[in-house]
Amino acid sequence: MTAGYTPDEPIAAIATALVPSALAIIRTSGAGCVELVSTLFSRPRALIEAQPSSLVYGWLCEPEADGKKGGRIDEVLIGVFRAPKSFTGEDMAEIYCHGGTAVVLRIYQVLLHTGFREARRGEFTFRAFVNGKTDLTRAEAVHEIIDAKTDEARSHAAERLSGALYRELLSIKQRLMQALASVEAEIEYPEDEETIADAFDPSGLRDIERELSRMCASWASEKLYQDGARIILCGKTNAGKSSLFNTLLKEERAIVSDIHGTTRDWLESGISFDGLPARLFDTAGLRETDDSIEQAGVKRTEALAGEADLMLYVIDTQAGISEEDSAFLTQFAVLYPELPVLLVCNKIDLAAAEQKGRPAELCVNGKTFAAVYVSAKSAAGIDALTTQVRVLLGARESTEREHPGLGSRRQCKAAGEALDSVTHAIQIAEDRSLPLDAVAQDIEDALDALGEITGTVVPDDILDIVFSQFCLGK
Amino acid sequence: MTAGYTPDEPIAAIATALVPSALAIIRTSGAGCVELVSTLFSRPRALIEAQPSSLVYGWLCEPEADGKKGGRIDEVLIGVFRAPKSFTGEDMAEIYCHGGTAVVLRIYQVLLHTGFREARRGEFTFRAFVNGKTDLTRAEAVHEIIDAKTDEARSHAAERLSGALYRELLSIKQRLMQALASVEAEIEYPEDEETIADAFDPSGLRDIERELSRMCASWASEKLYQDGARIILCGKTNAGKSSLFNTLLKEERAIVSDIHGTTRDWLESGISFDGLPARLFDTAGLRETDDSIEQAGVKRTEALAGEADLMLYVIDTQAGISEEDSAFLTQFAVLYPELPVLLVCNKIDLAAAEQKGRPAELCVNGKTFAAVYVSAKSAAGIDALTTQVRVLLGARESTEREHPGLGSRRQCKAAGEALDSVTHAIQIAEDRSLPLDAVAQDIEDALDALGEITGTVVPDDILDIVFSQFCLGK
Repeated sequence: MTAGYTPDEPIAAIATALVPSALAIIRTSGAGCVELVSTLFSRPRALIEAQPSSLVYGWLCEPEADGKKGGRIDEVLIGVFRAPKSFTGEDMAEIYCHGGTAVVLRIYQVLLHTGFREARRGEFTFRAFVNGKTDLTRAEAVHEIIDAKTDEARSHAAERLSGALYRELLSIKQRLMQALASVEAEIEYPEDEETIADAFDPSGLRDIERELSRMCASWASEKLYQDGARIILCGKTNAGKSSLFNTLLKEERAIVSDIHGTTRDWLESGISFDGLPARLFDTAGLRETDDSIEQAGVKRTEALAGEADLMLYVIDTQAGISEEDSAFLTQFAVLYPELPVLLVCNKIDLAAAEQKGRPAELCVNGKTFAAVYVSAKSAAGIDALTTQVRVLLGARESTEREHPGLGSRRQCKAAGEALDSVTHAIQIAEDRSLPLDAVAQDIEDALDALGEITGTVVPDDILDIVFSQFCLGK
Repeated sequence: MTAGYTPDEPIAAIATALVPSALAIIRTSGAGCVELVSTLFSRPRALIEAQPSSLVYGWLCEPEADGKKGGRIDEVLIGVFRAPKSFTGEDMAEIYCHGGTAVVLRIYQVLLHTGFREARRGEFTFRAFVNGKTDLTRAEAVHEIIDAKTDEARSHAAERLSGALYRELLSIKQRLMQALASVEAEIEYPEDEETIADAFDPSGLRDIERELSRMCASWASEKLYQDGARIILCGKTNAGKSSLFNTLLKEERAIVSDIHGTTRDWLESGISFDGLPARLFDTAGLRETDDSIEQAGVKRTEALAGEADLMLYVIDTQAGISEEDSAFLTQFAVLYPELPVLLVCNKIDLAAAEQKGRPAELCVNGKTFAAVYVSAKSAAGIDALTTQVRVLLGARESTEREHPGLGSRRQCKAAGEALDSVTHAIQIAEDRSLPLDAVAQDIEDALDALGEITGTVVPDDILDIVFSQFCLGK
């Protein structure tokens, strides 16, 4: 058992945000927790004798003192769950109370004075894991779904929460075990000592290698959905950069404005590119009147670009790429050769009459840039811009998802180790000079690594790291 | 029915704060709401056939499209309630889901696309009222308990939520009806035309007048608990004003620090004086080196004092009241004659050896001020300071509460009208020249006014005002 997460002891946590709202939830779990809560309840008997998975109405009260019943704290509903049919697999009582901060804090204080201890981060999910109610991929998905900033990220997490990744890993593990069994059979009872190399066919391992490889590659895209991309908007002030910023935000206003705290100031704003969360940074821009591009605005842009995942460079389609634009783009290509840049040719509403060649790529000082054509004013071309942004960032489309992606850096690391072991096993199997024992060892290593992902083989310190990232009450 | 609050129609609202947290609640209410939610649920049958007041586990999904089952949104529990045994008195389904913003918003969007409309503020409680599940005093107490900033305020609201005020009003109304009955009997069947004045004994009305008068007076204290007091801390910088500020905050840190958003900056801080919520303003203070008190600090203090409920003026006990202090106190007494001032004589740890007379009142330029003696350093005397603050602000002690107080300005206004009518009735009954019909009319007016408080007689526009102050989801 990992440090601090003692099992079965009654724990309590406030599971909703401590902000005045209509309702709030305080969860408790552990042996005897329903009975403990009943000592604070106006109808103790009704609570203790309640059907499992039922809701009991009554008043949460102060503890009895000197044989006198305590004062009423709040009118509540209590959800009663009995082991093993609960989230944690233990007895649970969930208190649904009014969402005033004083109410919630008082109930929580009273619980802590009545034998509950404060739950640690992720402790409810940890107990669910320990009691076999969930594996680690699903446990981590709980954390992911709470953190999800866009619906796309939420949907990827829900996929893992439903066990899709767990099942895929299980299938790979089963096939690895079959491979291991046939390797071990060959070692124990070699048919022909001369044909060691031919005795084991690594084609099954090659399939697994492909799948693990795809799985590891998926992390880059999943990570993007979880953390969001940083996108920097550059260009001369007359290129319509600010209108584009506003148009992009307006397109997504419905999603953005409802999410608390996504927008900090006018320079930076949360935005979703077709479900891909991003932070869009509007830069000070290049002034037309400036002789030199070595200005404060550029300095600021440089700093932002250093941490960006993509640059959108806005030009006026009619005016074309100016010398200033050209100098700027070249300078940045030198500074950040890895940073993808998308040329956004704006104001096509004005240039519409011409309609002459709109190449998908433009060459500036010998370097080729992808280009899209939009009108920030009419919002024409914004869909194409969104698609290009997703392509340049390497985001996988939902429709492309035949397989669930990995959900955390930890999972990716372990999958990478499994992949290395499998690749090594294939190499040895193909190299006729080495004994099959080495292949068996590699397959065992791969199985261990995959066991770390699902949690069947996992050191305590890793469990601590996984669950301590959770929010309270989960 | 009031505008906008159509009954029984399926409504939905997010009842917890939209801030990432472990869990969240989305409530729905109205005829057919369980069945509507079931179309989005992985186990529709289990939901529809669930025992009332039970919790059903499953997945909330996207709506079916082209006969294909929708994708999974989140793993949830749904609380099922059947009319009339629910908060609103209607069928209800409460969705307990993960507290990620994307999850909560998606479920809410999907509900709105499935036949639910957005609930208006207070609409759940409004339906509870319309369906006779609660009277107006208890409905308003729901709002009060959510807004309560301290445990004391919460406890007053809980008292009203439990129906204490409602029962007290009911008792007054019953006695008024009895008085009305005897007045009307006297009008219909006068025993003796000569003795009209003696025919009706107004002593019962006098009891009611006392009770209503006490009730109206309670509002000042209740209002203080609801809104909190504004307390301004003044004094010379060497008087230990800032230490006192910190000591007062530290004493209450446990309560203060946990409440989101109570502290804005170093100048202003949320604090509780033994359950009485207050905002404490630390002022720039008077500099010793200044020749004149007409300084910027004083200007700022003047502005704050204009909106304050109490001034704490800190002096160094050893140094005593300086000329500067004296000039300042006199000036403020002229500017704000109504503002109570408490002299806080600080640093008694240093002055301890003397222990010579510590009068409870000090005279400055002919004006008397209440005084307390503290050590901000050792926290000695802070309890006495707290008591004095509460006394000067007129806060009622919990232990003094034999009767529940009024919970809103609206209730206070109606109670005042009832009081006026009863007082008038007594005057007429005592004035032998007037007919008893006028007494009957007054009693009827008083009954109407009390009916407004509990909601038996209440115009629609008042209902609109009451419920539109609620938060969403209540």
